Amino acid sequence: MNIAIIGGTGPEGTGLGFRWAAAGHEVIIGSRKAEKGETVAAELLAERPDLKISGTDNVTAVAQCDVAVLAVPYDAQAPTLESLKEGLEGKLLITVVAPTGERKARVRRLESGLSVAEEAQQQLGEELRVVAAFQNIGAHNLHDLDYQLDCDVLICGEKAADKEVAMQLCTDAGLRGINAGALQNASVVEGLTSLLIFVNIKNKVKDAGIRITGIE
Amino acid sequence: MNIAIIGGTGPEGTGLGFRWAAAGHEVIIGSRKAEKGETVAAELLAERPDLKISGTDNVTAVAQCDVAVLAVPYDAQAPTLESLKEGLEGKLLITVVAPTGERKARVRRLESGLSVAEEAQQQLGEELRVVAAFQNIGAHNLHDLDYQLDCDVLICGEKAADKEVAMQLCTDAGLRGINAGALQNASVVEGLTSLLIFVNIKNKVKDAGIRITGIE
Repeated sequence: MNIAIIGGTGPEGTGLGFRWAAAGHEVIIGSRKAEKGETVAAELLAERPDLKISGTDNVTAVAQCDVAVLAVPYDAQAPTLESLKEGLEGKLLITVVAPTGERKARVRRLESGLSVAEEAQQQLGEELRVVAAFQNIGAHNLHDLDYQLDCDVLICGEKAADKEVAMQLCTDAGLRGINAGALQNASVVEGLTSLLIFVNIKNKVKDAGIRITGIE
Repeated sequence: MNIAIIGGTGPEGTGLGFRWAAAGHEVIIGSRKAEKGETVAAELLAERPDLKISGTDNVTAVAQCDVAVLAVPYDAQAPTLESLKEGLEGKLLITVVAPTGERKARVRRLESGLSVAEEAQQQLGEELRVVAAFQNIGAHNLHDLDYQLDCDVLICGEKAADKEVAMQLCTDAGLRGINAGALQNASVVEGLTSLLIFVNIKNKVKDAGIRITGIE
């Protein structure tokens, strides 16, 4: 697949992109400024010159991709999507966005009463395909390709086929993806991010994650 | 501890009560009708005559307890708490209530925009101590005291000392309790119940649960 990572210069976007490129995908690191995307791509290529990684601005990245991964801070989501709306037509958008930042790692409640993923879906319109995934993975070991991440990825979305794509990308990143239901359920997955930040703080660790038990 | 289980005749309340009694606590099975509480208590005592288990109506059960555990369906929560408000003064209320029942195991969003646990806290007033826990455990193996449950319990509440009590009750039931932050975070834990029901249905299992990784 050709995967564009929107806001791909942060640790999560970069780490996921690096893992997907190592699994054989073509990865385009998008950023607000093309230069920044190019710089991050060059850094990754310096480590692994055999991979297919390029960098550019978000709009160009989306134009080149099959699957776009949204990895911006929540407060940048709406303006970012506004500028990409046309380019995303016919493509799958996987959002990894989780709204955090509340005092004492409290779950952040949006004024809309919706999940961030549903807000994205509403903004883009029902024809555009949106799936939520990768909200609960710690970013800082992603970049180490040999590091075995001890967590699952909960995947929410409306269409089974779209969730299958996200499932494959979990596998390709060395993670287990789990179908967690409708996009409405993404509010739980997004909220888990804040809860895990609390667990991190409380236990003085960096990588608290979740596993689903009782299946397989 | 003297533990009253409000709505203790359902599988979760009965199972937890049985485990706590086996750990040495005195357990009072409460029900709307004293007779039903007595019947369930007698059934448990028939299995283990050495345990301290009694049954009565919810109001009497609460009057006799140190810790009350709310295990009623969500729609019964408000009227049940109204009748117990006075009796709960000075005691700790641990709520296991999770609002489920949405189509296709979607997360149920309450009109209040709050978690069920916060609704309970609001109704009872700020002086009453409310902690949320045990939302995500499958009920049907609880009754088997030798069964090792493969899941963690996320505990939300405002006061560390109250969460410690819930933590101890997790240990006593053979479970690991994890401090998951403020009562506000209970909305995530409650929503996880619907998400796990979806996982159960999708994977044709009965006992999907969650584990927190990356700590200890």
